[in-house]
Amino acid sequence: MSWPDEWPELIPLIPFVQAIWADGALSSEELGRVVRAIDGMDWLADGARSALRRWLDPGLPPLPSAVGALGARIRAAPLAAGEATGSLTDLGLALSTAERKGGPWSTPEAEAALRALEASLGVHGTEVARAARGEPPPAAQDRAPPPTGFDGARLALHLDQPKGEARARARDALLDPALRIELGLPLPEYRRRVLAAVRHLAERGLGSLAYPEGYGGTGSAAAAVAVFETLAMGDLSVLVKFGVQFGLFGGSVLQLGTERHHRAHLRAIGSLELPGCYAMTEVDHGSDVRSLETTATYGPAGDDLVVHTPHDGAAKRYIGNAALHGRMAVVFARLVVAEEDHGVHAVLVPIRDAGGRVLDGVRIEDCGLKEGLNGVDNGKIWFDRVRVPRESLLDRFASIDASGRYRSDIPSAGRRFFRMLRTLVMGRVSIAAAALSASKVGLTIAVRYAARRRQFGPDGGVERPILAYRTIQRELMPGLATAYALHFAVRALQDDLDRPGRADSAELEVEAAGLKAYASEHCVAVLQACREACGGWGYLASSRFAALKADTDVFTTFEGANSVLYQLVAKGLLSRFRDEMGDLSLRRAVRYLAERAETAVGQLNPVVTRRTDEGHLLDPGFHRAALAYREQRLLRSAAQRIRARLDAGIDSFQAVTEVQDHLVTLARAHVERLLLDRFHEGVARAPTPGLSEGLASVAALFALSRIETDRGWFLESGYLEGNKARAIRARVSALCAEARELSGALVEGFGIPDFLLPEEARG
Amino acid sequence: MSWPDEWPELIPLIPFVQAIWADGALSSEELGRVVRAIDGMDWLADGARSALRRWLDPGLPPLPSAVGALGARIRAAPLAAGEATGSLTDLGLALSTAERKGGPWSTPEAEAALRALEASLGVHGTEVARAARGEPPPAAQDRAPPPTGFDGARLALHLDQPKGEARARARDALLDPALRIELGLPLPEYRRRVLAAVRHLAERGLGSLAYPEGYGGTGSAAAAVAVFETLAMGDLSVLVKFGVQFGLFGGSVLQLGTERHHRAHLRAIGSLELPGCYAMTEVDHGSDVRSLETTATYGPAGDDLVVHTPHDGAAKRYIGNAALHGRMAVVFARLVVAEEDHGVHAVLVPIRDAGGRVLDGVRIEDCGLKEGLNGVDNGKIWFDRVRVPRESLLDRFASIDASGRYRSDIPSAGRRFFRMLRTLVMGRVSIAAAALSASKVGLTIAVRYAARRRQFGPDGGVERPILAYRTIQRELMPGLATAYALHFAVRALQDDLDRPGRADSAELEVEAAGLKAYASEHCVAVLQACREACGGWGYLASSRFAALKADTDVFTTFEGANSVLYQLVAKGLLSRFRDEMGDLSLRRAVRYLAERAETAVGQLNPVVTRRTDEGHLLDPGFHRAALAYREQRLLRSAAQRIRARLDAGIDSFQAVTEVQDHLVTLARAHVERLLLDRFHEGVARAPTPGLSEGLASVAALFALSRIETDRGWFLESGYLEGNKARAIRARVSALCAEARELSGALVEGFGIPDFLLPEEARG
Repeated sequence: MSWPDEWPELIPLIPFVQAIWADGALSSEELGRVVRAIDGMDWLADGARSALRRWLDPGLPPLPSAVGALGARIRAAPLAAGEATGSLTDLGLALSTAERKGGPWSTPEAEAALRALEASLGVHGTEVARAARGEPPPAAQDRAPPPTGFDGARLALHLDQPKGEARARARDALLDPALRIELGLPLPEYRRRVLAAVRHLAERGLGSLAYPEGYGGTGSAAAAVAVFETLAMGDLSVLVKFGVQFGLFGGSVLQLGTERHHRAHLRAIGSLELPGCYAMTEVDHGSDVRSLETTATYGPAGDDLVVHTPHDGAAKRYIGNAALHGRMAVVFARLVVAEEDHGVHAVLVPIRDAGGRVLDGVRIEDCGLKEGLNGVDNGKIWFDRVRVPRESLLDRFASIDASGRYRSDIPSAGRRFFRMLRTLVMGRVSIAAAALSASKVGLTIAVRYAARRRQFGPDGGVERPILAYRTIQRELMPGLATAYALHFAVRALQDDLDRPGRADSAELEVEAAGLKAYASEHCVAVLQACREACGGWGYLASSRFAALKADTDVFTTFEGANSVLYQLVAKGLLSRFRDEMGDLSLRRAVRYLAERAETAVGQLNPVVTRRTDEGHLLDPGFHRAALAYREQRLLRSAAQRIRARLDAGIDSFQAVTEVQDHLVTLARAHVERLLLDRFHEGVARAPTPGLSEGLASVAALFALSRIETDRGWFLESGYLEGNKARAIRARVSALCAEARELSGALVEGFGIPDFLLPEEARG
Repeated sequence: MSWPDEWPELIPLIPFVQAIWADGALSSEELGRVVRAIDGMDWLADGARSALRRWLDPGLPPLPSAVGALGARIRAAPLAAGEATGSLTDLGLALSTAERKGGPWSTPEAEAALRALEASLGVHGTEVARAARGEPPPAAQDRAPPPTGFDGARLALHLDQPKGEARARARDALLDPALRIELGLPLPEYRRRVLAAVRHLAERGLGSLAYPEGYGGTGSAAAAVAVFETLAMGDLSVLVKFGVQFGLFGGSVLQLGTERHHRAHLRAIGSLELPGCYAMTEVDHGSDVRSLETTATYGPAGDDLVVHTPHDGAAKRYIGNAALHGRMAVVFARLVVAEEDHGVHAVLVPIRDAGGRVLDGVRIEDCGLKEGLNGVDNGKIWFDRVRVPRESLLDRFASIDASGRYRSDIPSAGRRFFRMLRTLVMGRVSIAAAALSASKVGLTIAVRYAARRRQFGPDGGVERPILAYRTIQRELMPGLATAYALHFAVRALQDDLDRPGRADSAELEVEAAGLKAYASEHCVAVLQACREACGGWGYLASSRFAALKADTDVFTTFEGANSVLYQLVAKGLLSRFRDEMGDLSLRRAVRYLAERAETAVGQLNPVVTRRTDEGHLLDPGFHRAALAYREQRLLRSAAQRIRARLDAGIDSFQAVTEVQDHLVTLARAHVERLLLDRFHEGVARAPTPGLSEGLASVAALFALSRIETDRGWFLESGYLEGNKARAIRARVSALCAEARELSGALVEGFGIPDFLLPEEARG
């Protein structure tokens, strides 16, 4: 088959035909669509159209040699290099001009039709046109110049806010020798060093920032999280011991106790004079903390509470600070008053004396070696009828009065417990922030290592940095983009902690749960990818990945296992109001949502599902619409599926359990939509046009790589067609190459001090 | 809107309409297809059809209350429980009978049309019909009885073969106190214990199984890998030190040396009298070993070779056994004879004397602490003009004769080196086997823990084992199925090692590279999922996950980084013959493949792309066809894409680099197709019908979960439609629930001895 040169008006289509067969990825349906588009070009003569159709017959494809001849013709055309390779359309029209053929393509309508056809193919026009002309893509060079105006130092300064001063204090502290703990210490020595480090931080006043001013603090939870986030760049055992003492132990005294408890303990907690524990998890109940079995029984023998472990399964487990240093514990136990069980409450229970001896009635066992965080002394605690005064009950939400009567403004035991838990939201925000910091450290190390490490190259040529390879870019760049998305989302969450009203709202709780789950999951995945990208060097402890990975792995479990938290997020979305998450209201909520769903079947615009032009694919509006559509549709169908089960008489536990995987999918979709919104807000607030432009490209990478990863869902639900999914893949690759050019500045923006990095990864 | 009861023949369609709106997942296009199907049912009166169409209008969906009324009607029908809930069709027809309405549905044609309609909806008919009737699915119970005939002990016995005797010897050895190494030992002590353990294994004759009978072995590489696979259930530092000594060091002497070397060293290596190293990797060259820079120069001053590290970047790095115990090393170096560089060869170089003192001219540095495998003493080695006799060259493929002339039967330096590397294929097979064993240990622990651990439950009801939850099943069961697929594939590979001709074929090399990459990647993912499923307990070192994860992480890097190996697999597929993998032949091969592609666009049968009936979805033929289609299509398009670039004059390094991610995708697709074939062979060879039936269900889970994971690709390429993708998801969930019932027997089948498991996970 030779090209029908009797129809010179077909010349602009040569690059299209060549691209279609050289790529070979079009289905016959899609090929049919191309033919229909050409049929619609009524400025072509009938004979020309049918000649062209012979080249597009899926049943009788052209021989490779014929396709090869088209390629040769394209390369032979006398065009200036790079001039006509902006798209297949540009190339086709230039070809036509070069061969000095006139034709009907000068009208805007005709050119638009060509561009529309190009978009419908779902190819990366510039890349394909360049390849057809034999021009290497820009990615072939080792290094493009960094984009002007995208300055790492400037970015770092910007990202250091808000709470820059608190961050600076924490960075200073990390420099202190007390905080520089060597690798590979024996367990007892490691624990001693970690305790000393936490003491040092307390002496600098960093432990009590969240406490009221009267107790050595600033009253700013946001500042406390900023410190925690910064400390997470260093030794993570120090971080977690710090968090147990000042956040979990101190935070629960602050949030669940009243002034009496604050006066008695907060200063001693903030200075580490009173080391303590947060004793919630039990052997038999970790995720399902509502079902804890430790009891705190009031009376009847006296005006005190008897704290007791009824059986081995109710022993407190994995309690940080318990094995060695804790002297007091906030113990979560079922409060029993006059034989009535009021559900889980928190009680202050001394466990060691000032000399460090375990008190009578208390038994403690060391949890021993763990995967990571071995500088933290986790322990198991049993209580044998330990008596504490009635005032030991942390009584912000419920109290026992002097006459021994139980009082609470919140009538239901379930709601009361959830209300208590909500005040502890800071823990989840902190873990999200810490996971993100660890990811940033890992990404900084891997990106710099991969930019310097060279391996392979053309025969006789210079070896290329491994970051120039698409496989490595694909492994690191989307993770880097997600770290930026998380950065803006976690910072917004931190800010919210200082906003009265918002700080203990149900919305914030759902957001914190979702971000903690997503950030910790991202951290595990990104550190693994970073370690692997660094090969054998990444396996040496000195590269830091060993500790980063081992220490952060449990972040997926801390403060709620991720799969449980995602379900909580989904239930929150379904219920809208976390307070009403009892069964009855779940039933009400799904009914409401199902009724609200006016159009049960999404009416998608076929033009949008197929559009693949660059303007559209990079449009933040498209990204936002796609992620919002997925979230809304998953929310609606989750509500419908639960409702159908409830209506069928299935009990609500079973109904929710049956759609668990759907709920987890919904929650992740929600978090990704939220991340994109926060990222867009971050782009809008960037201090210079250069930073804003660069960040916008990273935001596009985040959004498109999320859509690419879940393209199964988008295709299945008709939101994308095949050509668009392919175009998105090509666009993600292009954005990865773009992100690589920005990556030096992007990791500099994270602001990890050089002294925390291995020599090979310093800035 | 109320149901059009004036048309009693529509009653069988009530469950369909209810399911369509209660699920709410259908696109308008799919709804249009339902309407067209109904339009084709010409036994319905026109009036009935248009009444029904009103219920299926995407623009005007029925109110939830109307859909609810349909549900109530279904539940109210006087049917025996479980009787009519095999499918929506069964339910609909039973409903019609129960309401005593006659109708036109008794013909086989009409019933078939209903069943076809049901299949096109892509719902799990039984599940939906049960839900509509308010009957809980079987998964709602805590535990179904284990399927008869699927017996764990019997399975274990079967899977122990072949080389059961070698496996038994290795299991015995693991029981010995010398092999039971405590957790958390200080580095020097750990290394001593590991050396002692390896010595113990040598004394039992387990190190030299692969060597010829004359040298203390059995000549069976398969037996050696079986031992390695079994030892991988225990301490992995012992395993890796064992592998370095007997596999890498001894294996290269055996494979690259000639009788002279065998006589001189093999016995001493097998008994560990001569501890040694395999010194390949250099600081600057890890993946790209063809470019190593250490030199071994013959003469000119005497009849010897001068081994030299020309600069710091050419120092040998991460060399196992080097920091403390190695006395000799197989050093890979560029062989220079009479100023001609013949490429990389292997030379035996003593590095320590019998007293353990490092020899003159050799400098060794300890690599220090690593993420895992800390019982192995890795080191960095520099050579400063170290002289060894000419005979130290391992000269199976190339030699220097007495007159100082270089001789080899293989003319090209590149091909010679690849030929040498191929003989070392056992290393990759061994890592694949070890990664799989580690996955099996992790799965055994997690599955048993999750079957025993209870958390949450209906109000006032018994708490459910976490393995009863779909999220946990979804996290563990596909990984378990993949472990079985890998089991059969790795065993087939082991067998091949003893088949002359096959053992050092290019095909086996490609297969070993692919399985090593896939197995190690699976190991990392599955251990992470297992650890998380076990929550806080999984984080304790005593649960074994800490060491399993840290020790195996580097398996993704050992013996070639996975992304590099996948590219090697893809190039192997493209080139067909690994020998000819030079650039020229790559060009020839892609041309050949592109020419061979007769139909460039797949002609897919629309009936198949939409079929969702159980028979089809569970058909091994469908699974095989889907995975083979993907592989073939990716292979063809990879060839086309490379060819288009080569034709455009892009150099081959750049051309291949640009399609790197495509090549990795192709390689994974190839491995998954191979795994499925091996799994099917394994099912066919199962010794009892019960075992065969159970394994077939696991094979279906493997195949369908792979298709589900990659449904983006299948949808994009038109191989699946949306309804089928959804049906596959529902089917994977059902197979996960089925696999849970088999999981106790499946992990028993792995045959991990109880003494290697934490108490909580013993059988």
